[in-house]
Amino acid sequence: MSSAAATQLVPVLEAGGPELSRQLHRTETRLAEVSESHGAELGRHAAATLTAGGKRLRPMLVFLCGGEGPALTAAAVAVELLHMATLVHDDVLDQAGLRRGHPTVFATGGRSAATATGDLLFSRAFAELASTGSQEAVSALSAASSALARGELVQRADAWSDSVSPERYLERSELKTASLFSSACRLGALLGDVSSGSIAALAGFGSSIGLAFQILDDVLDVSGPSSRTGKHRGTDLLDGTVTLPLIIARRRDPELAAMDLRELVSEPAQAEAVCDRIAITGALGAAREQALHHVAVAKAALGGVELAEHRSRALDLLADGMVERYA
Amino acid sequence: MSSAAATQLVPVLEAGGPELSRQLHRTETRLAEVSESHGAELGRHAAATLTAGGKRLRPMLVFLCGGEGPALTAAAVAVELLHMATLVHDDVLDQAGLRRGHPTVFATGGRSAATATGDLLFSRAFAELASTGSQEAVSALSAASSALARGELVQRADAWSDSVSPERYLERSELKTASLFSSACRLGALLGDVSSGSIAALAGFGSSIGLAFQILDDVLDVSGPSSRTGKHRGTDLLDGTVTLPLIIARRRDPELAAMDLRELVSEPAQAEAVCDRIAITGALGAAREQALHHVAVAKAALGGVELAEHRSRALDLLADGMVERYA
Repeated sequence: MSSAAATQLVPVLEAGGPELSRQLHRTETRLAEVSESHGAELGRHAAATLTAGGKRLRPMLVFLCGGEGPALTAAAVAVELLHMATLVHDDVLDQAGLRRGHPTVFATGGRSAATATGDLLFSRAFAELASTGSQEAVSALSAASSALARGELVQRADAWSDSVSPERYLERSELKTASLFSSACRLGALLGDVSSGSIAALAGFGSSIGLAFQILDDVLDVSGPSSRTGKHRGTDLLDGTVTLPLIIARRRDPELAAMDLRELVSEPAQAEAVCDRIAITGALGAAREQALHHVAVAKAALGGVELAEHRSRALDLLADGMVERYA
Repeated sequence: MSSAAATQLVPVLEAGGPELSRQLHRTETRLAEVSESHGAELGRHAAATLTAGGKRLRPMLVFLCGGEGPALTAAAVAVELLHMATLVHDDVLDQAGLRRGHPTVFATGGRSAATATGDLLFSRAFAELASTGSQEAVSALSAASSALARGELVQRADAWSDSVSPERYLERSELKTASLFSSACRLGALLGDVSSGSIAALAGFGSSIGLAFQILDDVLDVSGPSSRTGKHRGTDLLDGTVTLPLIIARRRDPELAAMDLRELVSEPAQAEAVCDRIAITGALGAAREQALHHVAVAKAALGGVELAEHRSRALDLLADGMVERYA
């Protein structure tokens, strides 16, 4: 992660207290163990992926929803491994050379090594979760994993399309992003110390902040600044991904709507120009409003859940953080 | 599968009796359900993969080791889904257009769809097995899945190498083939009706026949006839896979050993010529001897296992079938 990307999590970590810090530390230790437990070459690739870091947002959700204990560590490690598996496979498909400022497995090991590394991380995610002995937990992770794969496919199927509706965009975001956030919360609730009546509400919380996270990600792809996001503006445009800001802008700017995206953006400089054009329509503010709506829905879902005050507070802050990145 | 490829399984099916046929039928039904339970596009790709068929060797192992029941069906479906996931990913890496005479997902849907389809099949494998509620079973499948990924990586790392030892070849075959055969037997034993003391022996049986299967596959790649294997001779040579017949032939033919495989085979006609050169050394017979050795080890492992007579007989025949293909 860029350090800037994590600044909004500082209040969450403070609110989560020593319990959250301890659990995140255990997660890192276990992730390192997992990456070292394989053959030299695969270990190197897996280790590079794992230690490249990230915000560990999904593990945080597990702990804030569930509390503390070995089963929760296993669940946190599992969701992070699954998340990483999808990143490694995405990098293969995007032929991406860098992620979070580090060379990708695809860049250092090639297509085969990256595909195998992703498959290994998938396998290890399920192995880790199986250690909890909870069938419901494995089923929940598997459902999320299926959703991620379907979301990836929907995204590629819709690439370059001029007719993606906001509903279709949300459906895709549910699959490719919200499902794993929701699953992290569900696993925390299933394996943790909350009442079973709270599981659905916490899963709903995760789903809503996942949508907010995805929308903001898509706003940031257009708005930049690239000095903080670590990538050029308009990266999504360049691979034809139709995001909410573009969908809204097309409705407000008929000329933009009439243009063929494939002809419009064939190089980064053109993508930046389209980003500016999207921004002029006010689509970024409108998209951000929608993200804020999902944050509000998430926080409302927390209302009926009995959680220790500090965890409830940390989840609230985490929800706010979805939209406050670089704000 | 080509129908010729399955003929050696007829005696196994006969020995397995109505119980085995029933269970295999249930497996097909469940595989069809799984493929239909996803979005239209992914469903189409998954369904095409699943219905393209195959010998269902791994499900047979589950049932012959474990008997009958819903948990065994789930395990059989899981191993077959995992097997298919790896085939779909392999086809992406090999850019393969056909498998078993049908267009691959890579050919019809492209790289992205095939990667996502493979990921989905992976996920569904674990979901299916989780329904058994057995943590040991999920761990066993996960271990096999990790091994498959590592085996794939070892194979790519060793591609075009002039110094692959027979031991290294066996290690790779253990990972990429024998692990899933072994896992199928282990799952059958874990979830079925045999005593827990028999689990290790049955897993060992699976591992040994898996090695025999891989060696014979590699012999057939050199010997053909392509009319029966459904592919050109020397396919492995063309992508640099160093198999046991080549390793043995290099030891017997110093001139062959001194040649750079990459220069030697750049088109199918050259590959066929190298196949002939390998065959002349007698390497195919020597490799087949090694496969027979592993079949004998497998059958010996069965000796101490208490199994119903018809299942024991079917496993014996299945072991023989590993080497009798096209013999």
